[in-house]
Amino acid sequence: MKGIATCEATANIAVIKYWGKRDEKLILPNNSNLSFTMDDQLKTRTTVMFSPKFEQDEFWLNNKKMDLQEKEVAERLQQLDVIRQKAKINEKALIVSLNCFPTAAGFASSAAGLAALAWSASKAAGLNLNGSELSILARLGSGSASRSVLGGFVEWNKGEKADGSDSVAVQIAPSSHWPEIRNVIAVVDAGKKKISSRAGMKQTVATSALYPARLQYVGKAVEEMKKAVLAKDFQKFGELLMRESNSLHSVMLDTWPPIMYLNDISKEIIYAVHDLNTGEGKIIAAYTFDAGPNAHIYTTEENVPKVKKMLEGIEGVQKTMVCKVGEGPKFLKDEKDALIDSKTGKPRKATFDEQTGKIIIEK
Amino acid sequence: MKGIATCEATANIAVIKYWGKRDEKLILPNNSNLSFTMDDQLKTRTTVMFSPKFEQDEFWLNNKKMDLQEKEVAERLQQLDVIRQKAKINEKALIVSLNCFPTAAGFASSAAGLAALAWSASKAAGLNLNGSELSILARLGSGSASRSVLGGFVEWNKGEKADGSDSVAVQIAPSSHWPEIRNVIAVVDAGKKKISSRAGMKQTVATSALYPARLQYVGKAVEEMKKAVLAKDFQKFGELLMRESNSLHSVMLDTWPPIMYLNDISKEIIYAVHDLNTGEGKIIAAYTFDAGPNAHIYTTEENVPKVKKMLEGIEGVQKTMVCKVGEGPKFLKDEKDALIDSKTGKPRKATFDEQTGKIIIEK
Repeated sequence: MKGIATCEATANIAVIKYWGKRDEKLILPNNSNLSFTMDDQLKTRTTVMFSPKFEQDEFWLNNKKMDLQEKEVAERLQQLDVIRQKAKINEKALIVSLNCFPTAAGFASSAAGLAALAWSASKAAGLNLNGSELSILARLGSGSASRSVLGGFVEWNKGEKADGSDSVAVQIAPSSHWPEIRNVIAVVDAGKKKISSRAGMKQTVATSALYPARLQYVGKAVEEMKKAVLAKDFQKFGELLMRESNSLHSVMLDTWPPIMYLNDISKEIIYAVHDLNTGEGKIIAAYTFDAGPNAHIYTTEENVPKVKKMLEGIEGVQKTMVCKVGEGPKFLKDEKDALIDSKTGKPRKATFDEQTGKIIIEK
Repeated sequence: MKGIATCEATANIAVIKYWGKRDEKLILPNNSNLSFTMDDQLKTRTTVMFSPKFEQDEFWLNNKKMDLQEKEVAERLQQLDVIRQKAKINEKALIVSLNCFPTAAGFASSAAGLAALAWSASKAAGLNLNGSELSILARLGSGSASRSVLGGFVEWNKGEKADGSDSVAVQIAPSSHWPEIRNVIAVVDAGKKKISSRAGMKQTVATSALYPARLQYVGKAVEEMKKAVLAKDFQKFGELLMRESNSLHSVMLDTWPPIMYLNDISKEIIYAVHDLNTGEGKIIAAYTFDAGPNAHIYTTEENVPKVKKMLEGIEGVQKTMVCKVGEGPKFLKDEKDALIDSKTGKPRKATFDEQTGKIIIEK
């Protein structure tokens, strides 16, 4: 159906992180970065409808109407105008989104959300964009969202051009390349203090004396990481992953004033992973931490039980989730899956059932 | 009395830290570093006696005879042979030492201990050495001990020469220069894991990609710190102090495998200091953390109550101590203060009374 489209996109967990922009407005990163897109245990469904009947843009998130006057909300929807321009349409949009993430687990849902928006809004506007074009749209709302427009193992190239046209995401390998890879997520108590990653990375770039050395290091690490993943070399992958996470949190701590996301539970997990690997005589598990409380332990299918057992021994780990690498966003063409009633142009109330993983849409 | 000498030396708390050696054997640092020597709330008393009657060197610490076959003990006593060579004597030594530090508070006593040994052993051997010469001796047992041979504000120059002869401590300002300075020590629960600073710094130098950038940063910070202290500019001093501590713990975290001394209590203290300063509209307190659990909050006399009140609000802070800057080691010439009975050549049993701060020597 023209004018309306529904898409599901999933979160991605970086293995070489993005921290620091070369352009604040266009959201262009200081370093190329890499991630695996997750499976649909961490997804956002979004329906977008353009219609000449709409008098203004409207955005519903988790059944709640958002205030587009709020700067943060408006920033996230920047891509709408770009899409209208590209599609040469003037119609206003209704956007309805549902985050299907475990409750209160502190997951960053913006990457999945912005990727789902890029896919569904461009389609609803009649555009057929490729992955790189979609990544530019998603990036306008949240940098790391640029990687969630593709599945498998994805690179977001920092690019060189001032207009950001070469700062796009590309798929390095599909999810079928290394099917044994798992991301065991340890959901932990969040710390008390929190600074947004947007503000935090800006501070790091402005104040950390160690940050330029990190950029140099990461420039090399990105290339090594790509080789390790393409060769399915878990030893190399794991070491690079852990060192890169430590490097990131180092420059956060070196920021003025300091940024500290790792807490005592994180530290316990770090030590436990090192102990596990020492006991095994090789790297079978590797941690990475984003700008949030949860630990992501990359491992392979056969070692998931050992990683889960290890995490069970750590106080403060509230629950674990085992994610596979996902195939990226997908369109839902069945009208009954849409979060908007195309006839009335009204949002449909929808809830996510954590037990079954299903979305229940009110008739 | 010839052949025997007693000295008390005190701990020092670095404001620009020493982390990483350019020479492992001679203990020469990769960067010049700075500290304040503390008052005698954190002291070691040591008596050294040389005698032709002694058949071998003997070392008693806290009323316990130490095993000189143990590598760590032997390394700490390296300076003895250097002193005998300088003094052209062949006599064996009896060394008796008492650490007068609060119990179980996790204080590093090696700096005070090695400085007290350098003073008393060289004197007992008939030598009259200046501060720089003493610092070279103390350094042989523990790098940071080189700074404890002097009082006030002390620099340990990294030096350039391969033999370490220019890697000596010098007093930049006496304790009377900035008498209002206080170090409020927050004694906190130690974390579970611990790596010695000797092993840790070696790992950092070998593995941290950020460490060279820290050395560059610290090279400049040392000069700025000296200016700030000489100008008694607490604003500048405090910011440099905190940033340097954060930089140190950053490269520790960037070490492979990572070194993490800061725990959730440390983080609470860091946030509380920033909040206190924000509330005051200026820096009135500044933290620094060594390779151990305790926080050192530098402040000035008038603001000690505010700092203590702040620390009282933090769970996990077991006790606080307020130290002044000390005048450095001193000889105790009264025979009754000696930890060795010079007539019998036997150690005297001595205990430190934490309540009164006095040493009680058994008759």
